[in-house]
Amino acid sequence: MFHGLSAFPLTPVKNEEIDEQSFERLILRLTEAGVDSLGVLGSTGNYMYLSQAERVRVVELAVALSGDTPVMAGIGAMRARDVLANAELAQGAGADALLLAPVSYQPLTEDEVFALFKAVSQHVSVPVCVYDNPRTTQFQFTPTLYQKIAELPHITSIKIPGVDGDLHHVKRHVGSLQEKLPENFPLGVSGDALAANGLLAGCSIWYSVIGGLFPQAALGITRAALSGNVEEAQRLSQRLQPLWDLFAVNGGSLRVIAAAAEILDLVETPCLPQPLLSLDGPGRAALARLIEELDLQ
Amino acid sequence: MFHGLSAFPLTPVKNEEIDEQSFERLILRLTEAGVDSLGVLGSTGNYMYLSQAERVRVVELAVALSGDTPVMAGIGAMRARDVLANAELAQGAGADALLLAPVSYQPLTEDEVFALFKAVSQHVSVPVCVYDNPRTTQFQFTPTLYQKIAELPHITSIKIPGVDGDLHHVKRHVGSLQEKLPENFPLGVSGDALAANGLLAGCSIWYSVIGGLFPQAALGITRAALSGNVEEAQRLSQRLQPLWDLFAVNGGSLRVIAAAAEILDLVETPCLPQPLLSLDGPGRAALARLIEELDLQ
Repeated sequence: MFHGLSAFPLTPVKNEEIDEQSFERLILRLTEAGVDSLGVLGSTGNYMYLSQAERVRVVELAVALSGDTPVMAGIGAMRARDVLANAELAQGAGADALLLAPVSYQPLTEDEVFALFKAVSQHVSVPVCVYDNPRTTQFQFTPTLYQKIAELPHITSIKIPGVDGDLHHVKRHVGSLQEKLPENFPLGVSGDALAANGLLAGCSIWYSVIGGLFPQAALGITRAALSGNVEEAQRLSQRLQPLWDLFAVNGGSLRVIAAAAEILDLVETPCLPQPLLSLDGPGRAALARLIEELDLQ
Repeated sequence: MFHGLSAFPLTPVKNEEIDEQSFERLILRLTEAGVDSLGVLGSTGNYMYLSQAERVRVVELAVALSGDTPVMAGIGAMRARDVLANAELAQGAGADALLLAPVSYQPLTEDEVFALFKAVSQHVSVPVCVYDNPRTTQFQFTPTLYQKIAELPHITSIKIPGVDGDLHHVKRHVGSLQEKLPENFPLGVSGDALAANGLLAGCSIWYSVIGGLFPQAALGITRAALSGNVEEAQRLSQRLQPLWDLFAVNGGSLRVIAAAAEILDLVETPCLPQPLLSLDGPGRAALARLIEELDLQ
């Protein structure tokens, strides 16, 4: 399942409860579009804002609707005890793989992060993807730590942050990571704006935010990149530059994608759990125009 | 209660459950030493690692043992819904005041933080202290936001990060904040290494990590500073420079203070919830020597 487009849907709320109807609508939109896998309870799925019971429910709903499309579920939590419980519950609810970021309040040390992944690797029966997201975790992985963790049982992919720079530079970076990892270890790229080059540089999967709302747009980039069509993949990605710009000025993709789902009436307004607020004012108006101009779907 | 030394104890665990016996020992150590208030469920109290039920229990235990010493309790959570629930539960358990940091997974915007404090201020009946800790929250307060939040009902103090520099500089910084705030609004300093100058510069309270384990050392600095004895307060603080250095190289005070409590057999080893690990190896040995050499108590 660690190949192609992994689509990360929102977990919309309505009056601060999970909006199951809207969530199901989002999942069906993705499976109908033919995404390669689903990534529920990722950062876009607001896993850190949900209770244990809410997380289980999200996995259950996704698994029930996903048909043949594999489902990966985020299990990150502040406390190792809760990470292990989340892993068990997600597996029990039918998740095909787990996604784990070294979430922190007190930023973690390398020893702490390794011990956490080791404990999880001894506890699970499905594949685990390492989630490297320094912006939300305040933790910087080193290539050496990637290597140590990738040697643990059940650790099957790493979701790396987007790599900036031209394709030559990105290839060098991805190549240097691959040298440290087991052969054919599937690296996955995140950071949608940089995903095309990430795939062209040798990542085999795109853990994608826009894939969770605009699967056609993301599939276009993914298919072009994975078939080696550099020009077409980069053209399709550059076409979305105004969207990448909105992500950049709004502290990441979440508030923008939530506003887009609201604008398209795919979810209720507001769909984010408080205190998070989706885009409003001129930014929201610009986004509405963009969705139309770029025919995002 | 927003005056003098506010001591922030650890919440020790034992086999990943709250170690009630050790926690009670820590609380009694503080009340017997005569600290001016207790700050339970602060960063040192590992609030973000505890379940709602565990948090209630901590407040109950502290209130039951604190006698006349007022108790402030941390209520921060990722989700506004949980912050409000924590506020209600802490009040119900007898907390005299609440402490709230704008905790995040997705770093918050200024609008989101203001809305959160506004909601809490409308929900509570006891004083609320704003907790400004950019290292753990990834949020930078501005003086203007301090001002807006301080005007809300029930907002009664701000716990500011330590201000580096000489006393003249710290006085200018604290003075410029005070100009923006209501008259006699109690600013509290944190960042133990910089606390002496913070108090000398006009902060009225020290929200103190070492105060939670070494109350005598912290009371000495507090009493000297608040009686205007610049030389003595700075001398007592400089004496602890090797401890401040250990904090600096270990990603903050928590892992060092936890190791100190373990070394002194005031708690079980390990006393931190996983994945957090207290100091080990040469750092732990150096700390053990320091405790003895400085006669910390």
